Amino acid sequence: MPRFMDVHHGMQGITAEQLQQAHDATVAIEQEEGVHFEHAWADPGSGTVYCLSEGPSAAAVKRVHERGGGGVPDEIHSVPLMV
Amino acid sequence: MPRFMDVHHGMQGITAEQLQQAHDATVAIEQEEGVHFEHAWADPGSGTVYCLSEGPSAAAVKRVHERGGGGVPDEIHSVPLMV
Repeated sequence: MPRFMDVHHGMQGITAEQLQQAHDATVAIEQEEGVHFEHAWADPGSGTVYCLSEGPSAAAVKRVHERGGGGVPDEIHSVPLMV
Repeated sequence: MPRFMDVHHGMQGITAEQLQQAHDATVAIEQEEGVHFEHAWADPGSGTVYCLSEGPSAAAVKRVHERGGGGVPDEIHSVPLMV
């Protein structure tokens, strides 16, 4: 299954609770798109959030974000290589 | 221990072997700086590489990259929040 890293900007001041809520909201509906959000990392200072997911396509990852939580990512990169 | 996500750009065409070599080179010296590189993900298409690490500071992470492998990252973000 392809893996993706998506990046959200403009989330300055995001809290641990908000990050967890957004993650939970996406996990609640992700199966409908065959997506699985593995982890998310956030920097409240710069407002940058990174989300690592597996799924059939970047479009599917984007749809889960749109419908679920966390807002539409500013970037989505396929990351076929991992170590 | 603080966690960091660093981002390299301009690595179009990076191969799995090159990513593994760069990762191994950083892991070989990381302990000298109290840093641990957990994972790296790469998109050969856009040339973007993400490296997740733990360490005492962004400067320590940057030094391991400088001395070890993979080149100096274009961005380093502290990511204190994770889910």
